[in-house]
Amino acid sequence: MKILVTSGGTSEAIDSVRSITNHSSGRLGKIITETLLKAGHEVCLITTFQAVKPVNHPNLTIIEIKNTADLLQVMKDKVMNYQVLIHSMAVSDYTPVYMTGFEEVQASQDLTEFLNRKNQETKVSSKDEVQVLFLKKNPKIISLVKEWNPSIHLIGFKLLVDVSQEHLIGIARESLEKNQANLIVANDLTQISREQHKAYLVEKNSFQTATTKEEIADLLLEKIQSYD
Amino acid sequence: MKILVTSGGTSEAIDSVRSITNHSSGRLGKIITETLLKAGHEVCLITTFQAVKPVNHPNLTIIEIKNTADLLQVMKDKVMNYQVLIHSMAVSDYTPVYMTGFEEVQASQDLTEFLNRKNQETKVSSKDEVQVLFLKKNPKIISLVKEWNPSIHLIGFKLLVDVSQEHLIGIARESLEKNQANLIVANDLTQISREQHKAYLVEKNSFQTATTKEEIADLLLEKIQSYD
Repeated sequence: MKILVTSGGTSEAIDSVRSITNHSSGRLGKIITETLLKAGHEVCLITTFQAVKPVNHPNLTIIEIKNTADLLQVMKDKVMNYQVLIHSMAVSDYTPVYMTGFEEVQASQDLTEFLNRKNQETKVSSKDEVQVLFLKKNPKIISLVKEWNPSIHLIGFKLLVDVSQEHLIGIARESLEKNQANLIVANDLTQISREQHKAYLVEKNSFQTATTKEEIADLLLEKIQSYD
Repeated sequence: MKILVTSGGTSEAIDSVRSITNHSSGRLGKIITETLLKAGHEVCLITTFQAVKPVNHPNLTIIEIKNTADLLQVMKDKVMNYQVLIHSMAVSDYTPVYMTGFEEVQASQDLTEFLNRKNQETKVSSKDEVQVLFLKKNPKIISLVKEWNPSIHLIGFKLLVDVSQEHLIGIARESLEKNQANLIVANDLTQISREQHKAYLVEKNSFQTATTKEEIADLLLEKIQSYD
C-alpha cells in the first residue's frame, strides 16, 4: 500500500534567531516507517531536519518541513495520493503573531490592535524587562485530511501529560470522532522514554495496548494490512 | 591553558511539550574546541544535547545544559577555574513566565497580575483562538563573568541580523566595554552559512576579519596564545 507517515515536531519562528519548537525526536516515526518498508509497503515520510531519519530504502521518500504552514501545504498536495496516513508529528498548536514590550501592552486600550501587527525587526529587541508574545491558533491539519481524501485510512496521535488511562482513552475517542479517524494512538509523556513507550491504539469500540515503539509499529502494521 | 568554551543554543520550556529555542548548530564551538585541543590546551565545553559535538579527546570535558538557569549555575561553578572563556553559546534573552488565553488578558485591569502566575497544567490548553505568553528577561550571564573571576580573559559573541559593518562593530564595542570583555566576535546571521562565516574579531582599538569558522578558530587561538 502507499502510506504517508509524519514524524518529528514543527517549529514556529518568533524571529530569525528564535523558534517555538514542539519536542519530538522522530524515533517512533522512524521505527513505524522501517516496519512498513520491511513489510513491502511504499512510504512517504514527512519530517523535520532535527528528527532522526529511517535508513535509505528504494520504497522510501523523505520530505523535510519546518512549520505548520509548510506541513499544511505538503499534506494538501500529498494526502490525495495515499491510502493510509499515520500522522505522528507533534504539530504546533499556535504560531507567533507579534512580540513587544510589556509597557506598550499595559498601556493599550484594546489589545486586539496587536493581533494585526508584525515585527519589522529581524531580531526582536531585548531591552524590555518583560515581553509579551501574541500567538494565534494554527489550523488543525488532522481535521482537514478526510476533506482532502475521504477514502484515506487515517491514524492520528494524541499526546497528553500525566493523566489517567480513562481520561486519555476518552480524549482519544473524541479525536477519533471529530477527525473521522480510523484509529488514534493515545500516549502520555510521563510513560515515554528511550526504552519504553506505553500507548493505547484506540478504535471506536475497542483498544489495544503497546509498551514499546516496536510494539506500536507492529500493531499499526497489522491494522493497516487489515485495511487492504 | 585551561579554557572554557560554550556552544549551541539554550531552550526555555513553555510547558512539558514546547520550548523556545535559540538556533545554533554548535558547529563553530566544535571547531574552536578542536583547534584549541590540537594546540595542546585543556578545554571544558558547555553545550546542549542538540549541538554537534567535538570528537573525544583526553583534554576535553563536555557538560550538557538545557536552559539559561542551568548555564548560570554551571558557569558560576566553573568560571573561577579557567583562564579563558569563549562564550559562543546563543543564550535565550527571555524565559516564559505564564501563558493564557487572549480573552482573559483583554479583560484584565492590570496585566502585572499575570507576571506572578505559573501555569499549573503540564501542557497548556489549546482551546483559545489567541494566546498570550508573558516572558521575563534572563540574567545576562556574560556581564557576571568578571565578577566571578576578575582575571579571566573573556571572549564574547554578538549576533545581529542584516546590519551594516559599522553598526555591528559599534554594538560589539559597546558589549566589550559593558562586559569588560577582551574581545567580541561580531557576526551577522545573513553572512553565516555552512561554508561561510564572516566575523569581526573586535578589540578596543582594532578588529580583524574572518570569513570561515576555521579562520575564526585560528584567529582566536592566536589571541589566546598571546594572553599566556
